[in-house]
Amino acid sequence: MPGFSERVAELDRKSEAQPEPAPGPDGRRRVAIERLAPEIDCGRFPIKRVVGETVVVEADVFADGHDRVACELLYGPEGGELESSPMKALGNDRFGGEFRVTQVGRYRYTIEAWIDRFGSWRESLEKKIFAGQDVSVDLLAGAELIELASARAPVDSAELLRRWARRLREDPDQGKAIALGTDLLEMMTRYPDRELASRYRKPLIVVVDREKARFSSWYEVFPRSCSPEPGRHGTFRDCEDRLPYIASMGFDVVYLPPIHPIGRSFRKGQNNSDTPEPGSVGSPWAIGSDEGGHKSIHPQLGTLEDFRHFVSKAKDHNLEVALDIAFQCTPDHPYVREHHSWFRTRPDGTIQYAENPPKKYQDIYPLDFETSDWQALWQELKSIFEYWIEQGVRIFRVDNPHTKPFVFWEWVIGEIKRQHPEVLFLAEAFTRPHVMYRLAKLGFSQSYTYFTWRHTKEELTSYFRELTQTELNQYFRPNLWPNTPDILPEFLQVGGRPAFIVRLILAATLGSSYGIYGPAFELCENSPLEPGSEEYRDSEKYQLKSRDLDSPASLRDLIARVNQIRRENPALQANGSLRFHDTDNPSLICYSKTTADLASVILVVVNLDCFHVQSGWVELDLNSLGLDPNHAFQVHDLLGEGQYLWQGSRNYVELAPETLPAHIFRVRHRVRTERDFDYYL
Amino acid sequence: MPGFSERVAELDRKSEAQPEPAPGPDGRRRVAIERLAPEIDCGRFPIKRVVGETVVVEADVFADGHDRVACELLYGPEGGELESSPMKALGNDRFGGEFRVTQVGRYRYTIEAWIDRFGSWRESLEKKIFAGQDVSVDLLAGAELIELASARAPVDSAELLRRWARRLREDPDQGKAIALGTDLLEMMTRYPDRELASRYRKPLIVVVDREKARFSSWYEVFPRSCSPEPGRHGTFRDCEDRLPYIASMGFDVVYLPPIHPIGRSFRKGQNNSDTPEPGSVGSPWAIGSDEGGHKSIHPQLGTLEDFRHFVSKAKDHNLEVALDIAFQCTPDHPYVREHHSWFRTRPDGTIQYAENPPKKYQDIYPLDFETSDWQALWQELKSIFEYWIEQGVRIFRVDNPHTKPFVFWEWVIGEIKRQHPEVLFLAEAFTRPHVMYRLAKLGFSQSYTYFTWRHTKEELTSYFRELTQTELNQYFRPNLWPNTPDILPEFLQVGGRPAFIVRLILAATLGSSYGIYGPAFELCENSPLEPGSEEYRDSEKYQLKSRDLDSPASLRDLIARVNQIRRENPALQANGSLRFHDTDNPSLICYSKTTADLASVILVVVNLDCFHVQSGWVELDLNSLGLDPNHAFQVHDLLGEGQYLWQGSRNYVELAPETLPAHIFRVRHRVRTERDFDYYL
Repeated sequence: MPGFSERVAELDRKSEAQPEPAPGPDGRRRVAIERLAPEIDCGRFPIKRVVGETVVVEADVFADGHDRVACELLYGPEGGELESSPMKALGNDRFGGEFRVTQVGRYRYTIEAWIDRFGSWRESLEKKIFAGQDVSVDLLAGAELIELASARAPVDSAELLRRWARRLREDPDQGKAIALGTDLLEMMTRYPDRELASRYRKPLIVVVDREKARFSSWYEVFPRSCSPEPGRHGTFRDCEDRLPYIASMGFDVVYLPPIHPIGRSFRKGQNNSDTPEPGSVGSPWAIGSDEGGHKSIHPQLGTLEDFRHFVSKAKDHNLEVALDIAFQCTPDHPYVREHHSWFRTRPDGTIQYAENPPKKYQDIYPLDFETSDWQALWQELKSIFEYWIEQGVRIFRVDNPHTKPFVFWEWVIGEIKRQHPEVLFLAEAFTRPHVMYRLAKLGFSQSYTYFTWRHTKEELTSYFRELTQTELNQYFRPNLWPNTPDILPEFLQVGGRPAFIVRLILAATLGSSYGIYGPAFELCENSPLEPGSEEYRDSEKYQLKSRDLDSPASLRDLIARVNQIRRENPALQANGSLRFHDTDNPSLICYSKTTADLASVILVVVNLDCFHVQSGWVELDLNSLGLDPNHAFQVHDLLGEGQYLWQGSRNYVELAPETLPAHIFRVRHRVRTERDFDYYL
Repeated sequence: MPGFSERVAELDRKSEAQPEPAPGPDGRRRVAIERLAPEIDCGRFPIKRVVGETVVVEADVFADGHDRVACELLYGPEGGELESSPMKALGNDRFGGEFRVTQVGRYRYTIEAWIDRFGSWRESLEKKIFAGQDVSVDLLAGAELIELASARAPVDSAELLRRWARRLREDPDQGKAIALGTDLLEMMTRYPDRELASRYRKPLIVVVDREKARFSSWYEVFPRSCSPEPGRHGTFRDCEDRLPYIASMGFDVVYLPPIHPIGRSFRKGQNNSDTPEPGSVGSPWAIGSDEGGHKSIHPQLGTLEDFRHFVSKAKDHNLEVALDIAFQCTPDHPYVREHHSWFRTRPDGTIQYAENPPKKYQDIYPLDFETSDWQALWQELKSIFEYWIEQGVRIFRVDNPHTKPFVFWEWVIGEIKRQHPEVLFLAEAFTRPHVMYRLAKLGFSQSYTYFTWRHTKEELTSYFRELTQTELNQYFRPNLWPNTPDILPEFLQVGGRPAFIVRLILAATLGSSYGIYGPAFELCENSPLEPGSEEYRDSEKYQLKSRDLDSPASLRDLIARVNQIRRENPALQANGSLRFHDTDNPSLICYSKTTADLASVILVVVNLDCFHVQSGWVELDLNSLGLDPNHAFQVHDLLGEGQYLWQGSRNYVELAPETLPAHIFRVRHRVRTERDFDYYL
């Protein structure tokens, strides 16, 4: 039977009221801290930020009785000292504060709160003086509080405090003035009695990434299709020659499908056929052959030296290389020989290939994460990331992470980021929402989304409200792709060039990170394998492609313009401010993004109908745009260069799919200066 | 630098994936369990139920990949074995299950989930067979799974399983039939492989009370005013004679203000005057005199023996006595002499009296919970509860709990309920919402509410939606009081008898627990101390009262009727089903309560205007009432005895304040039996 101290200790441990280091059970800690936000799954997972961003923290903080409470936000890089900043009362016992993260890595944050004895005393004194009551004993009590504080203060302040305390004791009239003055209040606020302070139940974590985790523009390209001579297998050198073209469109990440040796067993032919024609190049995702596995380079692409050269050349063009990591093996992969236990053996002695009954993928052996040798497997997979980090790669696009255990990803991403906090991971998981969100929670820096299949105003609005206006915004960073080598959505198949423009602008303005699979995208390639299929006909996954990049139909210039707008307007470099505005036409979608200081305000209107001119009225939420309903404001179309003077919430737009189906307005609002002189900001 | 095992162990510990007893770190536990509900503040506080109620539990349960997961709810009284019941997939990775609590005390509940290997295998087999593929190797793999299960099964089942496995191996045709049959499925579901099962991060707690915690009707009475002779101080014996009257109105809790010796220092006179007239009786909340403290009885009320007799007599009338516990002392209380350190000393050596500047309460010394002798203070206060429990009391109404530390209440209620789980605590905290809610979270069985000041349709609707349709319904049990000795709301002051009827019916139907302060309430006493005050004139708190209980204006019969309706209609004995229905008149409020099986359906319409007849249309949410829009249904007014045949959602009502300002309808809906014979349920 536990005794008194054990019971109290248990409550003390369970409650928020446990500062660290814990000074032993104490039933006198009176402040409760509840509903701290942001906090993901009871602190099980960190929130995310990029360098320079702010973390706004709120909590309900209150005590029994009528005493005032004081409350501080504590924060700092993991392993370092905690800094503190005061939290302000927001009303109804809610307190708010914030801190800025200034370096990559992990930060802790928590809240500490205590009874504000001096503030409570001062408030009560003020009321009594106002009521004309005798406060001589109160002044003595105040003097005691001040003397106690002087023991916590450095010499100079202590001396001052003791002098004030003497006045309170000896000279009631002057004492009252000192007691209610701001000098004393300030000093006393600096040296509170925190012996019985409560701390939130556990420290919470922020993972801080570099800026690219939040704001990035991706371009996916198959190096083997970069050869200028049709039919010749492209190389890293060919791909290097493609870099100026990619950079000219304003992208900052160039993402390569797997670059490893491609298996020969069960190699697929064109259009995924089971009977490859001679010379079939196979799928880059069929990894592993006699020539090596995940740490080797497909010989037809070049050498490791070529790859390193490519990475460095890309950097010269402000492009960062993202590598595709697909943890799966062909039957020819060295792992199959060397680590038989990492694969599941069927009762007939063969290795279990991938399947999604009735479909069979005999060219792919999944790794068996339930192997009793899982620890060695994990270590080896980690070493693959480490290998490519050594070659200069800092961004990984991870193929199908949702088919490997969550705990593996949490471990491997945690381990890699501990050594290399600048490394970013993009989760290519197109699966059920909870699975996608958990992968983001456990560490992936960015995530593919359902954007690819969200086309109507209704679908886009509800999905992007979910992503940006809920807790998801704390840890799930969407990366929007209108197409991928696996997905040619029906909208692009049927809507022609206007559809590509619409989807480009939506991706680039709804998402601070987005990407396209090129040159298929900018050339508006839209032939499906067959009606009803989302696969490309003559898919680059199974064959080389040669294209005319100079086609007049190319969206190259428009893409360059859109990426320039993204770079020049900070509002488009984050997602938390996204707001949808009503329109009276279901084909017109209207939304805005702003920076916190409203210095950058972007308003986007898109005609989702690829076939007809659509017009209508937008009904702006002026408040979210920082606009005064009584003043006109200028909207400058950064795409089409038109400039309009609008006033009030209701404004007319008309958009034609064949010319430009969208406005990207920069809103310039008038501000009134001290000199009462209006100008456009 | 922690090594591999430590890191994995840490993740394993942090994650949901930790069964108890923890079998050591294992990276192969693949199932995630998220968003378990109900869970209060990350499991920091328990939820509440009464005996016989059900706990419905839901969670997101999912794994990587495409394997099926299986999931069980584990539950049972604390200290005992856990029982289990299967959870069902609700779609989108959500699982749901439930269990019933059958005894008072504390229950644990949690969720365990694992990969359903057999189910996954069977599903894949089915698809392959449907596609006409060869499944001979699959049958061998199935046979292995079955053999492994046989090792977990008791002898009989094991034998059967082994026989089935042999068939799968030896006779593919019969094997297929066995594999897809329900017999095997059932057996395999019974003996799953749970070695790598995940368990939710921590067990959660339900505090189970007896039924009165949820459904109770309180009557507050001052025993000293129960004397039949005006001017004579009433006694417990007099109060005994009042019991038949109280019982005749259908109450089941009789609640007495403090019964302890009343202090003499600074005793208040009539209407709270500072200059008591000779013979002033003082306030029962001014506890402590030469005659004793919190464990003594005010001599003018009688002896301890009288009190015990009163408790037992009350029981004969199906009335339970609730005692008022007010932890505060007059200057005359024995604690002041014996435990000086339990009070705060002012710098002038006097004891700090209660104050709310500029108001002073010199007759009351608050206990100083920040005393260094707090442990002894806590123990003594606990012993007060224990003392009255020994005298037969099982319900305590706690005065101003919000002015004592939260952790003290959590400890003392926990300690008392450990020994006496049947004891109930009502928190009399009229303060800020977070404070009131925390007191409920930490253990109070019932709570006073803002109902006392919620009068308009808008106010009532939004407040009761908050109390019943949010997480609050899991731990905050409202007890609704239209009046108290401290509060005569303006609505009652100005609205006359109809106002009392309206507030009675609202309290008794919106809340499964409610109470009145009588006989002030049933006699419609409504004179305030002065205009704008909520204090009663000639308040019973400071003087004896003598009344004519047989006044023809008394609401006694109506109250009896309402309490009878509450007893006879289980829908009114809980709050979770409360739904508001639209009306087109702001003075008409309409709401319903139902039992889960819809056997009891109550629909209430109240005219909130005490001065005018109001009529209008109610728009029923038929679905929540289990009603078919195409069938007429009978509504039977249990108050006024009218019976109406309604159909569809829109129905007309008219209510006059002077006759009966409310309907309490029992809804009788038609059900269709197998024999297609319509009758009224």
